[in-house]
Amino acid sequence: MNKEAGPFINARIEKLRLAMGEKNIDTAIIARPENVFYFSNFNPIINSHPAYVIISLKQDACLLVHCIRNDHARMEGSVENVQLYGKWGANVALAMHDIDAIAALLGDSPIRLGVEGDYASVNWLKAVHSKLNAADTSDIAGDIEMLKIIKDAYEIGCIRKSAALVDCGVETAIGCLDAGAHEAAACTEGQYRMREMWHERFQDYEVSGFGSSEGAQVDSLAVWSMANERIAYGCDCPQAYFPVAGDLVLPMSWARIGGYAAENERSVAVGELDALRNRAYDAMLGAREALFAVLRPGTPFEELYLAAMKVFEDAGFSSILPGRCGHGIGLSTHEFPSLTSGNKIRLKPGMVFTVEPGLMTKDWGGVRHSDTVLVTEAGYELLTQSRRDKITIKQCAYR
Amino acid sequence: MNKEAGPFINARIEKLRLAMGEKNIDTAIIARPENVFYFSNFNPIINSHPAYVIISLKQDACLLVHCIRNDHARMEGSVENVQLYGKWGANVALAMHDIDAIAALLGDSPIRLGVEGDYASVNWLKAVHSKLNAADTSDIAGDIEMLKIIKDAYEIGCIRKSAALVDCGVETAIGCLDAGAHEAAACTEGQYRMREMWHERFQDYEVSGFGSSEGAQVDSLAVWSMANERIAYGCDCPQAYFPVAGDLVLPMSWARIGGYAAENERSVAVGELDALRNRAYDAMLGAREALFAVLRPGTPFEELYLAAMKVFEDAGFSSILPGRCGHGIGLSTHEFPSLTSGNKIRLKPGMVFTVEPGLMTKDWGGVRHSDTVLVTEAGYELLTQSRRDKITIKQCAYR
Repeated sequence: MNKEAGPFINARIEKLRLAMGEKNIDTAIIARPENVFYFSNFNPIINSHPAYVIISLKQDACLLVHCIRNDHARMEGSVENVQLYGKWGANVALAMHDIDAIAALLGDSPIRLGVEGDYASVNWLKAVHSKLNAADTSDIAGDIEMLKIIKDAYEIGCIRKSAALVDCGVETAIGCLDAGAHEAAACTEGQYRMREMWHERFQDYEVSGFGSSEGAQVDSLAVWSMANERIAYGCDCPQAYFPVAGDLVLPMSWARIGGYAAENERSVAVGELDALRNRAYDAMLGAREALFAVLRPGTPFEELYLAAMKVFEDAGFSSILPGRCGHGIGLSTHEFPSLTSGNKIRLKPGMVFTVEPGLMTKDWGGVRHSDTVLVTEAGYELLTQSRRDKITIKQCAYR
Repeated sequence: MNKEAGPFINARIEKLRLAMGEKNIDTAIIARPENVFYFSNFNPIINSHPAYVIISLKQDACLLVHCIRNDHARMEGSVENVQLYGKWGANVALAMHDIDAIAALLGDSPIRLGVEGDYASVNWLKAVHSKLNAADTSDIAGDIEMLKIIKDAYEIGCIRKSAALVDCGVETAIGCLDAGAHEAAACTEGQYRMREMWHERFQDYEVSGFGSSEGAQVDSLAVWSMANERIAYGCDCPQAYFPVAGDLVLPMSWARIGGYAAENERSVAVGELDALRNRAYDAMLGAREALFAVLRPGTPFEELYLAAMKVFEDAGFSSILPGRCGHGIGLSTHEFPSLTSGNKIRLKPGMVFTVEPGLMTKDWGGVRHSDTVLVTEAGYELLTQSRRDKITIKQCAYR
């Protein structure tokens, strides 16, 4: 397993300790899978037996896992102090249940506890309070969000690789649509070519995602597509639809390398579009141009959104403006913050987000290109590099 | 979108209303994606803007979604009463934020609220309590679990299709390993063949999973594999490892049709195994035989586990017994309940779970076959149908 991440992870733990100190928290129990990974490099993939990172001002960081994951956590994690709960094979644990193990680790003295308030379940926190001396409990989710919003060099390296994969996925799908495949089959080919690229170029990295307590994502390399009014659904499983002249088709791809996601989406015109769709497509390209013109450190996120919206309004699309035109991306595919009205946060080098001003309506469908973008000292860098102009494919006559 | 599920979903809503009545709950807010789907047939796939089902004793069930999902929810969901929050395009919402929308729907009168205590976050419930008159709040997660444990005819039909797909994935991977591919490439071919089977036989059904707030699973058709000591990791991303004579390799597959998962895992011997691994493999086959011999309605789950463990103990593997030898499966890949010591619940027709007594140790690896099994009136039915004996492939000499 790739252990490059170790020094970067230690730096993140130190930053969280600083934030904890400022908020008078001495112990943080981290449970959201993406955050456990952020602070330990450990991704169990299956989360039916949750893993935790316990970060303390008083002791070394600890990675607490179910017995069944002992060897995996020791091999893959960058946190040396691995502790166990549960029962499996020959492994010896602190306790049968996770929270009893945490209590054994932390002892009886009162702690000033930090938890992820937007993740910790009501039942879980009740159990924690019944076993730990932690009457003083605060929410650290926002602090972790603010750490994750600036990507370090290791993270950016991973996202560059993911970006190459999603370019491959979308471009392959477009080629297949152009050759006469239906949407779902074009997506199948896109995913297959992404897997081949993974084998050829990035085989030492994992392509797994983080799932939930209810399901795992061993393979994150995905292409899907929607056309016409189905674009207004937001997201749906691709169908066996053969695009015809006049259609607007939207192939999309996500990929994760070392846990870090990139996104690529392209609007594809099939043959000649009608006047309304042409106007929408041109407005979308203009909105992107206006947005990129102000994309540099110091610009508030809101300004990116408003620059794009002005172009849509001037083109006559005020009634169907999107709620946002991009989102942070990293260990989550839709991460804080949003490119939207009211978001006064200023861009900083190291931020990574999607840029995708678009229009969507059940009347005629939707149009957008989505790219994954890195904010740099000088301005920005497009990590996804597929062509960004008006893309047209022919209608395939022989079906 | 496939709407067969409608009548079955209405029956589930009625069952939950009965359970609510018995617990003096009049309003349930359901938020876990798998459960939202269970009660509405709606899967947004991307959960960055959560969907909710609100089930009340006093009014019709309601599906509450973000504006961006209005068309999708109306097309796909079986709940007619669709309400909106947020802002997107031309859609008109009850309120900007989800909990304000819920408050608008439920009004000011006191409600006796049910929530999923193992899912609802601390922050979320705090916000609910600040906006709703719901001082009396109970946990309904267990009630929903007990509904989901018995699958109806529609669900079983979906799982049969998923089972056919996972058989395909594992069998394809085994064939590729036999032909000299490395593990990750064999998995790529397995997934590709599963996609082809989806196109050929099940194209009308979605293969998407439920993801989390942080990531989506558009495609659930997965094959992965681990060999030798890596089997003891529990789950890991497949690697470019070429198996050699004496190895034990474990190709595994999951698939979802209409949201419902099946699982197939097969232990594969490469050439001749050493005496210890042979003994373990034979013990595993014997443990399965002993377990299936008592698998019928009325048997407690615990008895299945103990029957298998006795065979492992008699074969000399007491020190590395597994913590469980199967788990429920359905909308979750690892669902309540476990086939384990202490689980006194008795098998009933309609239950679906994996049967996978196995051994795992970092010393020599691990061995198990996993099948997805339906409990029937007479006994059981194996939904996965790959060969279940000792599987051997040759070592590929030319690399």
